Amino acid sequence: MTAQLIDGKAIGLKVQEEVRLAVAKMKEEHDYVPGLATVLVGDDPASNTYVGMKQRTCKKLGIRSIGHTLPADATQEEVEKLVSELNADPTVNGILVQLPLPGHLDEEAILNSIDLEKDVDGFHPINIGRLAMKGRDALFAPCTPAGCMRLLEEIGVDPSGKDAVIVGRSNIVGQPMAMLLQKANATVTVCHSRTKDLAGHVRRGDIVVAAIGRMEMITGDMIKPGATVIDVGINQKEDPTRKRGYRLVGDVDFESAKEVAGWITPVPGGVGPMTIAMLMQNTLRAAEIYLAKKS
Amino acid sequence: MTAQLIDGKAIGLKVQEEVRLAVAKMKEEHDYVPGLATVLVGDDPASNTYVGMKQRTCKKLGIRSIGHTLPADATQEEVEKLVSELNADPTVNGILVQLPLPGHLDEEAILNSIDLEKDVDGFHPINIGRLAMKGRDALFAPCTPAGCMRLLEEIGVDPSGKDAVIVGRSNIVGQPMAMLLQKANATVTVCHSRTKDLAGHVRRGDIVVAAIGRMEMITGDMIKPGATVIDVGINQKEDPTRKRGYRLVGDVDFESAKEVAGWITPVPGGVGPMTIAMLMQNTLRAAEIYLAKKS
Repeated sequence: MTAQLIDGKAIGLKVQEEVRLAVAKMKEEHDYVPGLATVLVGDDPASNTYVGMKQRTCKKLGIRSIGHTLPADATQEEVEKLVSELNADPTVNGILVQLPLPGHLDEEAILNSIDLEKDVDGFHPINIGRLAMKGRDALFAPCTPAGCMRLLEEIGVDPSGKDAVIVGRSNIVGQPMAMLLQKANATVTVCHSRTKDLAGHVRRGDIVVAAIGRMEMITGDMIKPGATVIDVGINQKEDPTRKRGYRLVGDVDFESAKEVAGWITPVPGGVGPMTIAMLMQNTLRAAEIYLAKKS
Repeated sequence: MTAQLIDGKAIGLKVQEEVRLAVAKMKEEHDYVPGLATVLVGDDPASNTYVGMKQRTCKKLGIRSIGHTLPADATQEEVEKLVSELNADPTVNGILVQLPLPGHLDEEAILNSIDLEKDVDGFHPINIGRLAMKGRDALFAPCTPAGCMRLLEEIGVDPSGKDAVIVGRSNIVGQPMAMLLQKANATVTVCHSRTKDLAGHVRRGDIVVAAIGRMEMITGDMIKPGATVIDVGINQKEDPTRKRGYRLVGDVDFESAKEVAGWITPVPGGVGPMTIAMLMQNTLRAAEIYLAKKS
């Protein structure tokens, strides 16, 4: 193995600790505690788990968390009414509507109804629009790509002037990742299912971000020697030696890639812990914005 | 010369003729005429010329044009008040705030105050946000990049699966161009002033869009044989043989590039005529949206 590991678990905990200290200071100095409201529509088990994790992390860091659950058949009006109440609530700084929403709901309209200054997930169309434009800054960057940027910062890799190749163009990871890397002056290429010669593109990347959702698709022979490899994928790979019958692997074939890359994130323990840490940081930031406006 | 010329002048006129016919039909069937309001703040000569051109083209196509001029020291409130009146006016379908605005004005806030359904320039942050996201569609795409897409369509170049290299990342051209090409399933790379090995990137491009604002910067040796070259640049090059002492040239060195490219836009007469044509098309579309909602 030649690559150095990017320890997302340790870096995520470092971010959490920064947030915890800032929350304690805010409470002391302003007698104010940041609050995060989660909105879960329906009872999807995975969404349930995610929301639960977010609430527990809030608690750990001293952030008030307020959970709202609506039935799977909630109407557009009901969801928007709840968001509107949360917008008006001065104890709520961040509003997180857990995605995906049931198919009958208009996701964009709901995200659009969130107060821009409470959009801690960074999915409000205006935040995305700002992220996509030169000379403008989103109030909140989406948590997973923001977490990837923090990983780069922590290992001292400055994207400026580097070739960054992103594999995958989802709204949650690929697209905002491209915008953040470009804002950091990388030369960004976004690859996807229609890309011809994916290997050729990835091989140019000084920074490679894999976010395709296909198990171990990026192999070592596709990696430029010394490249920084950020693996956003989480896939279950059959493994009879494990009790649960599988283990988690990324979109990168870790075994071959680590022999070529300069830096690489493991799965699990790479990008995963960063998402929730950045959500906490965004919630703290939302509270800071609230206090700054109030004073 | 091996490249075929992309005749933007002819294609622009074709788009105009389509709009003219549709406007006439709308008048006949709905007794309604599309209206475009232009807002010019200050008296910048170039902006004045652009607004004048837009108004004349409106007239030619049967679109009502309403010109508003505010003094260079107009306040944010005055500009937003005018926009708000135009938003409320049912005879106005498109609102075009001529950019750049004087430095004391908050451009984003003004663009944001335009009714999304009247944003015929496509610069409203929500339109940009939608453009940047998968599975969402902007109501209006910014006119210059939309014009470039129409040129590709007219010459039968489908971006899907092709490598597209954009040089320049402005909010008006480079950024939205990247989004449109990616939506059309190209593999897009955005190059800019910090890009290392610009020539190497451009040389990969099946489609090259030059929008840097540097005279004749992209030379033939940087072009992949057979590539489609779209030149958005307009620069004044000294030329003592011309009466006015200069001629217009693009960001591409036309003489050398045309020997290598498969298709190339001339300057002038390439992308230029498309911008205004797409603005007319967007205004027609805004009127169609208005009528559809009314009925």
